[in-house]
Amino acid sequence: MIDLVLVGIGTGNPEHLTLQAVRELNAADLILIPRKGEDKADLAELRRSICAEVLTNPAVRIVEFDMPRRDVADPDYRRGVAHWHQAIAHAWNEAIHANLPQGGTVALLVWGDPALYDSTLRIAAQLSPAPMTIRSIPGIMSLNMLAAAHAIPLNDIGAPFLVTTGRQLRDHGWPPGTDTVVVMLDGDCSFQHIPADAISIYWGAYVGMAEQILLSGPLTQIGPRIIATRAEARARHGWIMDIYLLRRHVAR
Amino acid sequence: MIDLVLVGIGTGNPEHLTLQAVRELNAADLILIPRKGEDKADLAELRRSICAEVLTNPAVRIVEFDMPRRDVADPDYRRGVAHWHQAIAHAWNEAIHANLPQGGTVALLVWGDPALYDSTLRIAAQLSPAPMTIRSIPGIMSLNMLAAAHAIPLNDIGAPFLVTTGRQLRDHGWPPGTDTVVVMLDGDCSFQHIPADAISIYWGAYVGMAEQILLSGPLTQIGPRIIATRAEARARHGWIMDIYLLRRHVAR
Ligand SMILES: C[S@@+](CC[C@H](N)C(=O)[O-])C[C@H]1O[C@@H](n2cnc3c(N)ncnc32)[C@H](O)[C@@H]1O
Ligand SMILES: C[S@@+](CC[C@H](N)C(=O)[O-])C[C@H]1O[C@@H](n2cnc3c(N)ncnc32)[C@H](O)[C@@H]1O
Repeated sequence: MIDLVLVGIGTGNPEHLTLQAVRELNAADLILIPRKGEDKADLAELRRSICAEVLTNPAVRIVEFDMPRRDVADPDYRRGVAHWHQAIAHAWNEAIHANLPQGGTVALLVWGDPALYDSTLRIAAQLSPAPMTIRSIPGIMSLNMLAAAHAIPLNDIGAPFLVTTGRQLRDHGWPPGTDTVVVMLDGDCSFQHIPADAISIYWGAYVGMAEQILLSGPLTQIGPRIIATRAEARARHGWIMDIYLLRRHVAR
Repeated sequence: MIDLVLVGIGTGNPEHLTLQAVRELNAADLILIPRKGEDKADLAELRRSICAEVLTNPAVRIVEFDMPRRDVADPDYRRGVAHWHQAIAHAWNEAIHANLPQGGTVALLVWGDPALYDSTLRIAAQLSPAPMTIRSIPGIMSLNMLAAAHAIPLNDIGAPFLVTTGRQLRDHGWPPGTDTVVVMLDGDCSFQHIPADAISIYWGAYVGMAEQILLSGPLTQIGPRIIATRAEARARHGWIMDIYLLRRHVAR
């Protein structure tokens, strides 16, 4: 029998771990770490170094497994993702049963918070046999880090904000009913595809990490600089994660 | 000269503190704790017990100050809030200069994350003389705790979600352009004011705390139970904090 615990680890700064996350990792019998291949090697390394820093219980076993790759050739995107999730669930199952034949508590380190644009909860629901329990431990999200790094609030007083993806912004333009939008999962600087007037942008790449880059200002002025900075940083590091908040200024 | 650091403490569970928050509190010369009056006494007490648990540096001084009250009689709501914020900034100034005449680092413990529906950043900007630096340390937010407690994702795959207030939902109905809405600052179970068909609700009160209550299900069925449970819990504890996520099921 397996108890599964998904532990939010924040966005790259090992100090983002909560006291609860540290306790949960030390209470696990097994921690699974995905090896994702060359390009994201730093992130597997980060998970290893987080474990090295916070584990005080020598009984916890750390096991790495090869993360299956998504078949990007599948013309049906949803089907491609579904197959990929099945393959990941299968890889977890194998690693769990090889290493914990009698059952126990298995922990996975999830980037940011498991609730935000992450498939781990959905993949966990596909494990078979199903775990006895699946628990989620909240973590600092990239949007918290973005706001903290710029020392800005997410919302205007009493006002809503929308969290969305680059694709949504590109395909549907400025979303109705809100003057604040946080954009994630954007490989494409999708802010280029909306009218830039009277919008402020607060952009961050690698937020919370040693590589952190921040830029902010009127979108008309800063937009082009973000595009150039992002391309340069991506080329230099071989990968990038970025996020931004857009605030529309409306005369009242 | 003052360095001000706003430390997100999560939503009531002392284990929500991050390692960074613990380090920052221990690096402060002065921690200011607001006394808010009888009804919220437990929350001042919680701040005290967090300090007692995580402070290892005996040089850190903890000082309590009386939190000014907002003039609820002011017919102009915005002006009332502006005056109140000024009064709070004044109370901070007095406590800081009485206790740190030579300057130093002052920490404030902020509920959840300082970026989410919180005035601390705005009040800090009104301090005079202005602090040399104002930094924000991210914390676990109530919406992370809500998702973790229900073990649900915030977003549907690739889809946006809106974070808003009870008043917005009541006054404007279901917001356009999103099928997921997180509602905070709702003294009124504002979900009563929208059509309940094909909506799931995930509700939590005192999330992350010992008193935590969770309810979820179709809004048509669970809505009335939430209203009754909330009224009863509020009467019993003398105060309540609750939050919920609404998900609309749309045929595709
Ligand atoms: C698959 S989602 C995972 C989000 C994560 N669960 C969280 O709570 O932040 C990945 C996206 O999160 C954002 N992101 C995550 N970490 C980041 C970081 N350190 N700096 C900037 N953006 C980050 C980027 O928008 C990236 O495309
Ligand atoms: C003034 S806002 C502060 C939010 C806080 N900064 C955060 O990050 O969650 C207060 C609102 O947050 C929500 N909230 C905060 N703590 C909560 C808890 N422990 N349980 C449920 N809701 C909570 C409620 O909706 C409450 O009305």
